[in-house]
Amino acid sequence: MTKPLRLGIAGIGVVGSSLVNLIRRGRDGLLARSGREIVVSAYSARHKRSSGAGLDDAAFYANAAEMAASADIDVFVELIGGADGAPFEAVKAALARGLPVVTANKAMLAAHGLRLAVLSEQHDAPLCYEAAVGGGIPVIKTLRESLAGNAIQRVSGILNGTCNYILSRMETDNLPFGVCLAEAQRLGYAEADPTFDIGGFDTAHKLAILASLAFGSKIDADAVSVEGIESITLADLAAADELGFRIKLLGVAERTPHGVEQRVHPTMVAKSAPLAQTMGVLNAVSVEGDAVGELTLVGPGAGGDATASAVAADVLDIARGLRLSAFGRPAAALVDADRVPMQRHEGGYYVRLAVVDRPGAMGAIAARMGEKLISLEAIMQKRPTKEAAAAGIAPVVLMTHGTTEALIRDALAHAVADGVVRDKPQVIRIEREAVDRAPLA
Amino acid sequence: MTKPLRLGIAGIGVVGSSLVNLIRRGRDGLLARSGREIVVSAYSARHKRSSGAGLDDAAFYANAAEMAASADIDVFVELIGGADGAPFEAVKAALARGLPVVTANKAMLAAHGLRLAVLSEQHDAPLCYEAAVGGGIPVIKTLRESLAGNAIQRVSGILNGTCNYILSRMETDNLPFGVCLAEAQRLGYAEADPTFDIGGFDTAHKLAILASLAFGSKIDADAVSVEGIESITLADLAAADELGFRIKLLGVAERTPHGVEQRVHPTMVAKSAPLAQTMGVLNAVSVEGDAVGELTLVGPGAGGDATASAVAADVLDIARGLRLSAFGRPAAALVDADRVPMQRHEGGYYVRLAVVDRPGAMGAIAARMGEKLISLEAIMQKRPTKEAAAAGIAPVVLMTHGTTEALIRDALAHAVADGVVRDKPQVIRIEREAVDRAPLA
Repeated sequence: MTKPLRLGIAGIGVVGSSLVNLIRRGRDGLLARSGREIVVSAYSARHKRSSGAGLDDAAFYANAAEMAASADIDVFVELIGGADGAPFEAVKAALARGLPVVTANKAMLAAHGLRLAVLSEQHDAPLCYEAAVGGGIPVIKTLRESLAGNAIQRVSGILNGTCNYILSRMETDNLPFGVCLAEAQRLGYAEADPTFDIGGFDTAHKLAILASLAFGSKIDADAVSVEGIESITLADLAAADELGFRIKLLGVAERTPHGVEQRVHPTMVAKSAPLAQTMGVLNAVSVEGDAVGELTLVGPGAGGDATASAVAADVLDIARGLRLSAFGRPAAALVDADRVPMQRHEGGYYVRLAVVDRPGAMGAIAARMGEKLISLEAIMQKRPTKEAAAAGIAPVVLMTHGTTEALIRDALAHAVADGVVRDKPQVIRIEREAVDRAPLA
Repeated sequence: MTKPLRLGIAGIGVVGSSLVNLIRRGRDGLLARSGREIVVSAYSARHKRSSGAGLDDAAFYANAAEMAASADIDVFVELIGGADGAPFEAVKAALARGLPVVTANKAMLAAHGLRLAVLSEQHDAPLCYEAAVGGGIPVIKTLRESLAGNAIQRVSGILNGTCNYILSRMETDNLPFGVCLAEAQRLGYAEADPTFDIGGFDTAHKLAILASLAFGSKIDADAVSVEGIESITLADLAAADELGFRIKLLGVAERTPHGVEQRVHPTMVAKSAPLAQTMGVLNAVSVEGDAVGELTLVGPGAGGDATASAVAADVLDIARGLRLSAFGRPAAALVDADRVPMQRHEGGYYVRLAVVDRPGAMGAIAARMGEKLISLEAIMQKRPTKEAAAAGIAPVVLMTHGTTEALIRDALAHAVADGVVRDKPQVIRIEREAVDRAPLA
């Protein structure tokens, strides 16, 4: 019989505890599927765990890097989180020893993924990170293995459950952003400092990973344009609904004539699209490939058990002898990521304006759009609220046909300068469904 | 540099041609991802292909088994289809030679999967079949690898695009079954003899494969209860819509207190469920695991390019040295599939009845239900059509709470015997969403 596969787990938090439980209760299944017993033989944490936690037979380390460098283990599992410091040092030490590494750490991969991939190759030690993106959704394996025969055109996804919960809640219960954020915090979906989630940065880290896998580029978090969901109002959600859309925080990496765009922003998604139907804390990823067409994966993007499921899949791959480059191709074959300025983005736009309620105001705005050759697909002017009427404001929503970010921003800047628009215009990009998007020029 | 991986492709039809094209246009990407050049060095077909088909450098065989047994190849790709005869003989010959096999042949796997898995192990020759279920959707890899750490509770899916197209079309355009079937045939979605698709048999083959992977059982197509969609009427679709459901042909494999059920039948699916939102020729599979929760994959279930995408993924796995048991565990570890009689199925039921329009008729039906302890969740009686009224018939739709197939069938048989119901009652099983299903007893 083959020797057991001995794991050293760094970080026994929610995911780490779930993993320990999964290994304990799934013992027979894991053995049947991998041909090897999976055992936890070391762990690191701030405090030694008391008996009953399933770690009595595992050696305790107070220091993750020390465990990575010296513990008697076959796989190093990093579940601490954070881009730098202890987890990064520990992962480097493990790879340098030739130990396969499994990690759920998207921040570390976004910051140091290329360097770790190189280390992984140098020491012939696999680097696996299914749990880093989309929780229990097997999006890494799908891109790295299942769609390996495809030229990928586009990856887009709802990659942050906190944002999706807030936007879903706002829409379903007609509650403003602040109330839904507080609710998310109360339920443990959002951190006390929610900036990382709602500002789009968590989504950006995950998108950078997916873009590297999809387009064979060096992971480059700085190539991602990022906007969060803080500015989304109930007025936007109501207008979206009326126009046949939902607003989702999407991460999108897409091949365009200007290069591969990587962007994170609130997005108008047609209600009929699978991504629009993904509500609450669920995550979803759609991939378009030249052979497969469009494929969508929907599932839990977070949570201890779902994340442990993804970690376990990586561990089993290693037990079964997986040998794959971290980003699907040898690190030396990865190209530099494009850095496409957002100004060059092409697409349709939703614009919500506080138009000054006086004769000719709408005409002046339309003229500014016309100067930039922007044509309008829809115009909605609703009866103003009492407050808006008192302030002499008429709320207007526009939907444009395809144009560029530079042109729409320019047209709106002129309209604001003309004095016919009060406040900052709300601008939300529209994603067409695959079938509606024109082929590339 | 590693030697090229030489494929022998048996069957150059729609999928075979797409695969040849994919390999030609994806040459550089495949090399970068697998580290080996992928070449087609032999093919078998009824006729030799003329130049320009991308097969000029490949040896032609008129006989697939001869190619499998003697061609100078590293992988045998079977794209002929059909359970027996040439493809089965050829696959056996290839495995016996120790050649890895990639196949899209669900009928062959349903009939002979276990025997082929044993051969695969004996000769250390991988047997891969991602393309056999769900076309371009990576459901085999997801069950075999990504969810390997989970105890699977349930797999359910829309696995036949023809049926889903017909049901979607009936619903969307209010056209009867026959018209939509003819349309499907005209568009090439359905065969001239459509029995295999609309009778549910194609879905049953695919479900048998998924059940084996999910539950570690010997593949057993005879364990699947099968009903097709021929009896579904516009009246059923209209009633479903009103009750908040869509009717889909589902394949369901589910762990129950009586064993693992495997069943294919038209099903009431709540509109909010991802499977209900899968329209047209798309396929979708939902998997419930103890760790991951619910995961849903949606994509193209057929078509040359999408299927070739799945075949290419298997080829690349082999190029990268994949070593996995065909059904995720050694053949010797697979248990006998349960054969749970449909009579033991537990769930809610939709029943549409032609009730004889006379005093006491509904009372008699309700009494028969009551005798079997079946409680009703909804009753809908619509004004009869002119024809129904003339025939003295009142159309009635019932929705039951949870009961068993035996009880509902028994109650309805009594109602028919009582003479209060004309015609055969229409009975459609209801699938609750995961969140609504009670935990197992």
